Amino acid sequence: MTDAATNMRLKLPITCFILQIILIILFGAVVKYDHETDAKAWHNMTESGHSNYDNDFYYRYPSFQDVHVMIFIGFGFLMTFLQRYGFSSVGFNFVIAALALQWATLMQGFLHGLHGGKIEIGVESMINADFCTGSVLISFGAVLGKTSPVQLLIMAMFEVTLFAVNEFILLSALGAKDAGGSMTIHTFGAYFGLMVTRILYRPNLDKSKHRNSSVYHSDLFAMIGTLYLWMFWPSFNSAITAHGDDQHRTALNTYYSLAACTLSTYAMSSLTAHDGKLDMVHIQNAALAGGVAAGTAGEMMLTPFGSMIVGFLAGIISVLGFKYLSPILEEKLKIQDTCGVHNLHGMPGVLGAIVGAVTAALATRDVYGDGLNDVFPDVAKGDIEASFQGVRQAISLAVTLGIALLGGLIVGFILKLPIFGAPPDTLCFEDSVYWEVPGDEAGHEDQLTTVRTEESEKLNS
Amino acid sequence: MTDAATNMRLKLPITCFILQIILIILFGAVVKYDHETDAKAWHNMTESGHSNYDNDFYYRYPSFQDVHVMIFIGFGFLMTFLQRYGFSSVGFNFVIAALALQWATLMQGFLHGLHGGKIEIGVESMINADFCTGSVLISFGAVLGKTSPVQLLIMAMFEVTLFAVNEFILLSALGAKDAGGSMTIHTFGAYFGLMVTRILYRPNLDKSKHRNSSVYHSDLFAMIGTLYLWMFWPSFNSAITAHGDDQHRTALNTYYSLAACTLSTYAMSSLTAHDGKLDMVHIQNAALAGGVAAGTAGEMMLTPFGSMIVGFLAGIISVLGFKYLSPILEEKLKIQDTCGVHNLHGMPGVLGAIVGAVTAALATRDVYGDGLNDVFPDVAKGDIEASFQGVRQAISLAVTLGIALLGGLIVGFILKLPIFGAPPDTLCFEDSVYWEVPGDEAGHEDQLTTVRTEESEKLNS
Amino acid sequence: MTDAATNMRLKLPITCFILQIILIILFGAVVKYDHETDAKAWHNMTESGHSNYDNDFYYRYPSFQDVHVMIFIGFGFLMTFLQRYGFSSVGFNFVIAALALQWATLMQGFLHGLHGGKIEIGVESMINADFCTGSVLISFGAVLGKTSPVQLLIMAMFEVTLFAVNEFILLSALGAKDAGGSMTIHTFGAYFGLMVTRILYRPNLDKSKHRNSSVYHSDLFAMIGTLYLWMFWPSFNSAITAHGDDQHRTALNTYYSLAACTLSTYAMSSLTAHDGKLDMVHIQNAALAGGVAAGTAGEMMLTPFGSMIVGFLAGIISVLGFKYLSPILEEKLKIQDTCGVHNLHGMPGVLGAIVGAVTAALATRDVYGDGLNDVFPDVAKGDIEASFQGVRQAISLAVTLGIALLGGLIVGFILKLPIFGAPPDTLCFEDSVYWEVPGDEAGHEDQLTTVRTEESEKLNS
Repeated sequence: MTDAATNMRLKLPITCFILQIILIILFGAVVKYDHETDAKAWHNMTESGHSNYDNDFYYRYPSFQDVHVMIFIGFGFLMTFLQRYGFSSVGFNFVIAALALQWATLMQGFLHGLHGGKIEIGVESMINADFCTGSVLISFGAVLGKTSPVQLLIMAMFEVTLFAVNEFILLSALGAKDAGGSMTIHTFGAYFGLMVTRILYRPNLDKSKHRNSSVYHSDLFAMIGTLYLWMFWPSFNSAITAHGDDQHRTALNTYYSLAACTLSTYAMSSLTAHDGKLDMVHIQNAALAGGVAAGTAGEMMLTPFGSMIVGFLAGIISVLGFKYLSPILEEKLKIQDTCGVHNLHGMPGVLGAIVGAVTAALATRDVYGDGLNDVFPDVAKGDIEASFQGVRQAISLAVTLGIALLGGLIVGFILKLPIFGAPPDTLCFEDSVYWEVPGDEAGHEDQLTTVRTEESEKLNS
Repeated sequence: MTDAATNMRLKLPITCFILQIILIILFGAVVKYDHETDAKAWHNMTESGHSNYDNDFYYRYPSFQDVHVMIFIGFGFLMTFLQRYGFSSVGFNFVIAALALQWATLMQGFLHGLHGGKIEIGVESMINADFCTGSVLISFGAVLGKTSPVQLLIMAMFEVTLFAVNEFILLSALGAKDAGGSMTIHTFGAYFGLMVTRILYRPNLDKSKHRNSSVYHSDLFAMIGTLYLWMFWPSFNSAITAHGDDQHRTALNTYYSLAACTLSTYAMSSLTAHDGKLDMVHIQNAALAGGVAAGTAGEMMLTPFGSMIVGFLAGIISVLGFKYLSPILEEKLKIQDTCGVHNLHGMPGVLGAIVGAVTAALATRDVYGDGLNDVFPDVAKGDIEASFQGVRQAISLAVTLGIALLGGLIVGFILKLPIFGAPPDTLCFEDSVYWEVPGDEAGHEDQLTTVRTEESEKLNS
Repeated sequence: MTDAATNMRLKLPITCFILQIILIILFGAVVKYDHETDAKAWHNMTESGHSNYDNDFYYRYPSFQDVHVMIFIGFGFLMTFLQRYGFSSVGFNFVIAALALQWATLMQGFLHGLHGGKIEIGVESMINADFCTGSVLISFGAVLGKTSPVQLLIMAMFEVTLFAVNEFILLSALGAKDAGGSMTIHTFGAYFGLMVTRILYRPNLDKSKHRNSSVYHSDLFAMIGTLYLWMFWPSFNSAITAHGDDQHRTALNTYYSLAACTLSTYAMSSLTAHDGKLDMVHIQNAALAGGVAAGTAGEMMLTPFGSMIVGFLAGIISVLGFKYLSPILEEKLKIQDTCGVHNLHGMPGVLGAIVGAVTAALATRDVYGDGLNDVFPDVAKGDIEASFQGVRQAISLAVTLGIALLGGLIVGFILKLPIFGAPPDTLCFEDSVYWEVPGDEAGHEDQLTTVRTEESEKLNS
């Protein structure tokens, strides 16, 4: 027998089926191919002078696939570091992301412009849907191990909606630039998730403390996630920037930011350990902060020099956060941040937003030439001064923090309703609550199965 | 000493060397660069107005690399779920694929058009060779754990040949469309493999039953395979469709089909478990069925709505197959389908073929515009009605099933010859028959090595 | 308490910080965007007729990302085969590479042409920086398990510098061709590393012998590295060849070379085992030799036939090296080559250089047409005969061997200085010297933690 409270047999299928059927109906009602995926529309364009290599597919699909790997392998495996939570990390990541990208297509489509009442989709909307999904997965990192899959799916639906609203305010209403999402993706996802985990605070979480740590091979699995995030971050930040120099420059800036961040992460990890030993938590997470921090300014003329300084600082801040700030947040503010998303996405996201504001404020036609139209169109048209673009960026950060925290507050309380099958305090960070789990290892199987069986009998009685 | 029957010391090297030397000789005799890989031919073209970005390399190479990852990492790691068969899963996958792609280049080249007696190759032929290889690996999944590497190499040679014949009949003789291979790759590979495993039926396979299951980390390794297949399936289905809107649309359709399939897979996995717990077998496999089922119609104007319905159904069918049909197939029909390829490739492949036939039959110039030339050239030329294209597609499914089952029957009997070193019933799903296997884990090494040594002494005596 | 000698608390942070700050200052002083990443310069070009799809980003970025995966996942995971050295393999690989790619940008920039005193960077320089990094990681394979991170960072700085000098001599002074780096990357990295490990010879290394081997799952992790290297090698060899047929042909040649190499590797691995069992060491390494050996001639009109012969021979040589030559090198020449880089990069690199020299010497305008300008510009211009190009290639091999061996000698002695915190002979191939290491497995944790604690107490007392 299984614990009735966490039994997903009805809750999960009903949630999945209802949401998926609603999505299918809405897609049927309002979604259509854009002019580059539609056979008729594209062939009308090629007849009027376009060539097939003008199709946005060839500019963006390789970047899309890199982003896609970051979402499913990167985030999924990064979270496998927990010793008994690998199935859930990869598996819940998978299902949340599959839901979120569909809902994001609709929400972003509604807000970013309907065409005759229809949402038109193509490779750029796929990238944007993946981006929005990334934000949800960041929040997942904050609550990792303490939520049921139904809670996560509900959270995803609300968060995607709020993400789209915030993104609309920033990019369309305020005219901010944030191609790599320091604000829209990282800051939003982190502070939303932190607020949710604050509301879901568990005073007795130490009953599961022995499982809230890694084992040797789980840390290696996590490094797969880390490295894919690290390697493909240049594609992430450049995926939706303008064609030509913009995509090229963004990738390059991110590449050097990450390299510098890696060096400062290793330095700080060793420096802050009493015996100088490197800590896998820092390597797996802080080395990525350089990508987060280059998210807003990456497309700007930040220069490689500027990118490296940003990455260097991001690595330092992030390790310090893991070492000194996270324990304080947990103890004083009751924020149980499983993956330390505040250190990887929160603070580096804010840093990235500030760097973006400053870089924008310093933009001149002398430096950007006609490229100013791509990066700061309002400044190029003479509608606003560059300094005001900087102000827009700063306001955007404030708006993002506000919506994330307020949204997280509300959604946190919704998730607290005792109907979603959250695990008990004694069974957090434990796959076997929601998964059929086999033994650990050939040869030890029998022994372990016995242990597991006893355990699960105990918890079911 | 080792068991003489499964000793590969002469069998495997002889097989590999003979096959490879034949391949090299044949490549020397009949294979040449196509006009886009040949230095002279390409520069003649660029002088007459082509630009380097017209080279097909830039349209297809990123997709090729995604497909390549699916073949070697995707299929390879998907099959590592067995507790003691990881080396063989990844390692045999590797060598079979390396052989099959070479032989496929020749077989597909012979059948799809010689140029002055020569086979011309480039990125498109590389993709097609990888596709054909995928079919062989599907069949490998059916017989996983019960065959020697020599049997697998022999099977690969025959299957590639039959694949090329079937593909020629479908695409050239019957004029069917099947860019993502629902029929040519998935249906063919699955039913061929199922027939082979039927012929190789082992009544006493339960002697190895304790190894025919996963352990915790082997399931995580398998998820690497699953996710790479899932993420790159849009590239798989679009890799050889026409340039422009066709590649773009196919990728998009597949993306949404897979997302919907993932949700229905999770729902069904939980719903069919008595305690609502998710089963890794379903997640690893059924979530991919949406890619299989979008293989034929993906390039058509299926619409995102249609794609999602297809994916949604594929996930449901696939989980039901794993849960209820596979045990029946094994018990009643004596089909021991190790990876459940019938559920991932067989039924979803047939579903994809049917969806393709219906979608083709409904094609109109009103919807496709001039794009009709790309997708259904015979309909566009007015040679046939769209409804007849649907009939062609349906006939193609029947032909594929026929050739696959008949071919599997014959090849199964060939593989039954007692000269290829198949493992005994007691040593199926066991790496140490064909591999030097180290201990399981640092710290337990000595203990395990002892166990292993005793075991292998027993089996060698 | 920890052993003071290997305590990295000051050494590693100081090294990382100083090097990174120097890099940032130098980047600020001399590095700028090239005309394809700079907003102003690119928009000036597009106004004078260039289109965005002419930007080199679209020709090379997908290849760059494949190379990037080879460097961080490929090399990193290939070296995780050791049972207790996974953190260091992936983690040191990560930090060395992050440093090396920055330093390589500067060194290669200085030597390959300054523009008005500035180094201009873009996607091609990023690929070249990754290539140079690859060479350092090959050398890392030779000394794996026996060096501290500080030693490795110092080695990287020197090796990158010497790599750039050698590359400059070969490509600029001697006019050799080596797009895939058989000489510049593989031969150089291997012989440099072999000389370093010779100088660092440890007579008492067998005190750590029990850890210098794999366990079951570490071999599976290593296969991730192997397969990514194998799959993406066509991108590696073609990443910086000329646009159009050259990139296309190089990828194709490498694909077939690797396929043939895989077959001969499996054959030889089985043939050289007394019981015919395959050895993971061979599969993980020798199957890649075909990529190394096609590094120089891959861009030439080698033909698929020629490529397959080269790959076939490379696999044979490599397995024979692992089986028979490595033990001799260790015993007689005192070269402790942990990963066997001599067999994967050394000998196949030399083979590739020879194949390149012969193929170059046989080049004719009849075969290459106007493509001769891309591959052998000096021959095309009539400045030299093709046979002399072959001589250039042969001289380049000799120069590479000389600089690598001499450089390795000097750097080896520098690394021998007893200030860098090298591990004692008893603690080689052991993560816990430089890393916080968790237990091995959930359920065994307590037991293992105890063992580990006892061990580390012993070693610290």
